[in-house]
Amino acid sequence: MGNKHETFTFKLGDFKLQSGKILKDAFLIVDVQGELNSAKSNAIVFATCFGGDHNFNQMGIGEGRALDPSKYCIISPNLFCSGQSSSPSNASPSQKGSKFPLVTYYDNINAQDKLLQEYFGITNPLLYIGFSMGAQQAFHWGALHGSRTGGIVPICGTAKTTFQNWIALEGCKLALTADAAFDNGNYTSPPSIGLKAFSMNYTSRLFDQKGYEENLHLGLFGGLADDHAYFQTLNDLFSGIDANNLIGMANTWQHGDIGKHEKFGGSTAKALSNITCPALVMPSSSDISFVAEDNIPEVKKMPDADLKVIDSKYGHFAGSMSPALSSEKEVNFIDDGIKDLLEKIG
Amino acid sequence: MGNKHETFTFKLGDFKLQSGKILKDAFLIVDVQGELNSAKSNAIVFATCFGGDHNFNQMGIGEGRALDPSKYCIISPNLFCSGQSSSPSNASPSQKGSKFPLVTYYDNINAQDKLLQEYFGITNPLLYIGFSMGAQQAFHWGALHGSRTGGIVPICGTAKTTFQNWIALEGCKLALTADAAFDNGNYTSPPSIGLKAFSMNYTSRLFDQKGYEENLHLGLFGGLADDHAYFQTLNDLFSGIDANNLIGMANTWQHGDIGKHEKFGGSTAKALSNITCPALVMPSSSDISFVAEDNIPEVKKMPDADLKVIDSKYGHFAGSMSPALSSEKEVNFIDDGIKDLLEKIG
Repeated sequence: MGNKHETFTFKLGDFKLQSGKILKDAFLIVDVQGELNSAKSNAIVFATCFGGDHNFNQMGIGEGRALDPSKYCIISPNLFCSGQSSSPSNASPSQKGSKFPLVTYYDNINAQDKLLQEYFGITNPLLYIGFSMGAQQAFHWGALHGSRTGGIVPICGTAKTTFQNWIALEGCKLALTADAAFDNGNYTSPPSIGLKAFSMNYTSRLFDQKGYEENLHLGLFGGLADDHAYFQTLNDLFSGIDANNLIGMANTWQHGDIGKHEKFGGSTAKALSNITCPALVMPSSSDISFVAEDNIPEVKKMPDADLKVIDSKYGHFAGSMSPALSSEKEVNFIDDGIKDLLEKIG
Repeated sequence: MGNKHETFTFKLGDFKLQSGKILKDAFLIVDVQGELNSAKSNAIVFATCFGGDHNFNQMGIGEGRALDPSKYCIISPNLFCSGQSSSPSNASPSQKGSKFPLVTYYDNINAQDKLLQEYFGITNPLLYIGFSMGAQQAFHWGALHGSRTGGIVPICGTAKTTFQNWIALEGCKLALTADAAFDNGNYTSPPSIGLKAFSMNYTSRLFDQKGYEENLHLGLFGGLADDHAYFQTLNDLFSGIDANNLIGMANTWQHGDIGKHEKFGGSTAKALSNITCPALVMPSSSDISFVAEDNIPEVKKMPDADLKVIDSKYGHFAGSMSPALSSEKEVNFIDDGIKDLLEKIG
């Protein structure tokens, strides 16, 4: 099988959201690596994370890796609000910027399901995997479509956003919007002071105390000269993202809860018990945004789930599947876990 | 012995700071409960914490408690920048507001030493105790004056501010100053949007994940109706503090390191080994600002120190010594620890 790589736009038209609102002329930007086999049995959906689009996902894909594009058709549909798929920054005029509606994880996976069925003709993806906000999408996918999915792999994410995580995100949002230049989302140039404040607050949670004391952050992004360079790199990263897009993604994240669907009537437990496919849940032992412990009660309620904690000092990034953001140990541990699951369900 | 209670101003005159700068017409606001005995052997210095002045300390004092004003003379000197002692909000015109110089913990304890010697005639206080920023002052006091102090009790604090703690504070400061109304510290009315952003980010670290999930925050301040009431209470608290004062205190905190003194030449280890008096170090098992683990290497370098971890879900507040901010279990555990130490050194 070849290793085709393409990125395309999938048009959703006027797309009905969970809220009942219509997202006008909605679309997904979709990245595909590898080819779908004739039985359409080798599709892996690889969801995207906060502040990381399908290009970020490339770091988790490679020949010989678990997500091997010479074996699998790896589909990365970008999150709404990512700046790739429909987002405040690229919406039709009446929904642009501050006028963009709240989008939930269920909205994201509904759009992705439409993509799989209508574009690829896939009803039963082999695997659904994701890191961070991608992991939260994986949980949502499993709750709704577990019965027709080979397996899900949520890495460094929870099925329901915890209250502390919610507060931390609210703090980041308030830091950004405290900049008067944000102007209720109607800025004409980026609110750079607010974006910097957002970045610093977000940064405080990327590693735990120990990871920072051991200067693991200076090994990121190919190596950084000092703390200042680290802050500058993160600031550059977040400042490169449209402010309303950042807030849109954070809103989706804060709203995250697989129980919030008419099928489950608000019961997270009921939704968890509906994840009938095999699931491999992989938190990081040092992640302070998605604490490993928080996955334990979730996994207990899932009929066929394994919890494999990534024993790591790399904090949240331990789940990035990228040697540039963690270490080979973490990358191999995750890859091995996925390979075992693929073996079991393949 | 009676239980006198008074609050007074101690004038320091033009006070030389570690930086070499002069803090003009400096003063301490000092609260005293209990009476000094004729041998001057029953003085306990009870340092104040971030955002909490000598009134906050009252919650840790009481007859029958460890800090018993019928036995001890409990002296609470307010931190510089607290709004009580010399602060940006009350400085002489040439140093007011944004013009207030950086004040270190060593500056604070130097002023306190002057207070003890000149006002009370005390050279050897029986005990020096403090919570949070108060704990950090206790470490600084011990490093410099351990040889003439009965003991120190740092509760929920470290001898050196960790990098992650520094980042979190930097995030809070950037959130506050992102409000254009802050105007580089030259605001004419409180920068309320920035203060709210500060508060939310600070709030995210008061409890750990589990504490928040268990809704312990709703039991604070006599009981709160819901999350909104909790955020409002914290916002009211921080909004009631002058913004430059908040930043001044945060600067002292971020700069915290007992090694940063000419006597220790930048070596935290050397300063720790100079804490020769008995020390009782009490972190909280769920504090994410001052992580219990971070005290372990510190205590190892101290000649006569005990580490007693407060096994608690009350996060940072576990060390507040107040039943209104934690629970009787925590209050009693700390009180018992202090009583044992007082027994040993008394």
